Amino acid sequence: MTPPKNGKSKMERTTAADVARAAGVSISAVSRAFTPNASIAKQTKSRVMQAATALGYQPNPLARGLITRRSGMIALLMSEVTNPFYPAVLETFARALSSRGKRIMLFTPGEDEPLEALLPQALGYGVEGVVITSARPTAEMTAACESAPVPVVLFNRTVEGAAISAVGCDNEAGGRKIADFLVESGRKRPAFVAGLAGASTSLYRERGFTAGLTAAGLPTPPRHVGDFTFEGGLRAAEELLDLKEQPDAIFAANDIMALGVLDGLRRVGGLRVPEDVWVVGFDDIAAAAWPSFSLTTFRQPIKRMVAETLRILESSDDGAPVPPSTVLVPGRLIERNSTAG
Amino acid sequence: MTPPKNGKSKMERTTAADVARAAGVSISAVSRAFTPNASIAKQTKSRVMQAATALGYQPNPLARGLITRRSGMIALLMSEVTNPFYPAVLETFARALSSRGKRIMLFTPGEDEPLEALLPQALGYGVEGVVITSARPTAEMTAACESAPVPVVLFNRTVEGAAISAVGCDNEAGGRKIADFLVESGRKRPAFVAGLAGASTSLYRERGFTAGLTAAGLPTPPRHVGDFTFEGGLRAAEELLDLKEQPDAIFAANDIMALGVLDGLRRVGGLRVPEDVWVVGFDDIAAAAWPSFSLTTFRQPIKRMVAETLRILESSDDGAPVPPSTVLVPGRLIERNSTAG
Repeated sequence: MTPPKNGKSKMERTTAADVARAAGVSISAVSRAFTPNASIAKQTKSRVMQAATALGYQPNPLARGLITRRSGMIALLMSEVTNPFYPAVLETFARALSSRGKRIMLFTPGEDEPLEALLPQALGYGVEGVVITSARPTAEMTAACESAPVPVVLFNRTVEGAAISAVGCDNEAGGRKIADFLVESGRKRPAFVAGLAGASTSLYRERGFTAGLTAAGLPTPPRHVGDFTFEGGLRAAEELLDLKEQPDAIFAANDIMALGVLDGLRRVGGLRVPEDVWVVGFDDIAAAAWPSFSLTTFRQPIKRMVAETLRILESSDDGAPVPPSTVLVPGRLIERNSTAG
Repeated sequence: MTPPKNGKSKMERTTAADVARAAGVSISAVSRAFTPNASIAKQTKSRVMQAATALGYQPNPLARGLITRRSGMIALLMSEVTNPFYPAVLETFARALSSRGKRIMLFTPGEDEPLEALLPQALGYGVEGVVITSARPTAEMTAACESAPVPVVLFNRTVEGAAISAVGCDNEAGGRKIADFLVESGRKRPAFVAGLAGASTSLYRERGFTAGLTAAGLPTPPRHVGDFTFEGGLRAAEELLDLKEQPDAIFAANDIMALGVLDGLRRVGGLRVPEDVWVVGFDDIAAAAWPSFSLTTFRQPIKRMVAETLRILESSDDGAPVPPSTVLVPGRLIERNSTAG
């Protein structure tokens, strides 16, 4: 291996003074170049960055974090990384934070690790704020969030009665909107495919959906649990087809289950989409728009949800928690071929 | 809002001594409870954790990191979070690190941010190692990696001639295997859909594929660029159908493009899969197994690739970089209906 270009051994770290010398600037300029939003000429910053890269210099935000209590890190506690909705959320957070000079520290529970075990760990790293997307925060988790020394926001879920900020799509209004749409289009026997038991998103979507059907004089929809997975949707479709009165519409509480429902209907055969049965999802993940599925769904405005989350995290001037607030962002129905009359 | 249970104001942080008192243990026991793999009785650890959660205690790994140079953080520089292969990679890394008491710090470039700008930032946080999954590391990036003060591993890509460790699937062998499979099955006019120009994964898969066809006396396959996206696959299918000699097999350099090819073939119509044309992908993402697609593909052994990456990152005892090594893990062909004769 070639030695680093500054001739120092790898264990002997390059200092800000080395970079300042190489770039022909002051040490203060080096410090400012690495401080997000600090005042520094673009050209100076560029010279510092070039010198820093050439010398393998690393500024020390750990030390800075200890002094300023601003680590520049936001913790994201996420347990469903492979449901395609969440990578989109993750990317939106990463880009938004990146433009603020901040970074995501990702906490995903291990096989048998409860999500609440991660919160003290995240706080221990000196993160400036915490975003949680667990489907089902436990009571312990809720208590820990309430007494956390930095702002905490639940993303895409709410805990009733808890003093924690939450940002989500208006799931109940979304479920209601889907019910109204199906009723107005003359559907008589809609069914529901639920997500994970206890997930607030599924509960609220179902509540709005059932309320809309009831208001139109239709009975409470038959329901099957699909666990928010594609395979769960596949199974739910097969079970719904076994009913004596087959449904003429199926609302699945998220897109990935709705795609499973579509594939389940195809596999079993007999009922055509949309001629015999309509299918509606929730989220608007990328695959919902793929020609094979062309799924009607309720779009969650991820960008706005992320912006509202960051607004809450940043509303504290001194890093202390802020009074909890709940923000519900409206979504909208996206009609595609799975419901085309 | 209710005050924290220890009666301290939120800005006045709970100390290890507070936790030790509440749990009835020594301060040293509190410290060991928060140190991964430290020697401590399970019951003691559990009491410390309960007291810490109740008091909202955060240990200070920033300070510890400054002393031990062990921050417990691995940086993941990832630019393609929404290609479904990468969330699976991310989750595998997160779970594997979690079981070691370590965490991922995720760096995703902003809109116009070059990935190489992120490396000094990542190093600045005192990460113990860096994993990079950018499709196309630049020359600047390569130089910065070579002189980084901690181990760096390129995941699922290689840079020829660079002194950087790399872990990937044997892409060339995979492309060759797919060619052999098509040739042995009597396919005469295979075509290729390439990923992003300059991506090593696409280049090696194409190299192996073309070599296999050439060895069997077939001409170099017609090729279209699909940019590693679903939409790119859709377009490539339409372009391949416009050829005077329509292909009887299409190998797309990743699954998400292959799914686009399948949907493009359906949309245009005329050619049936697999009766008229076979389609093969690479990765084995979850959607490849969905009944609508049932895509034959080459499975990348993500778990083993992640394990090899962590082995390299951890092979340094003192945190210093280790001599670079390249590990190619074999994958395997998964046959599904998109090629069933």
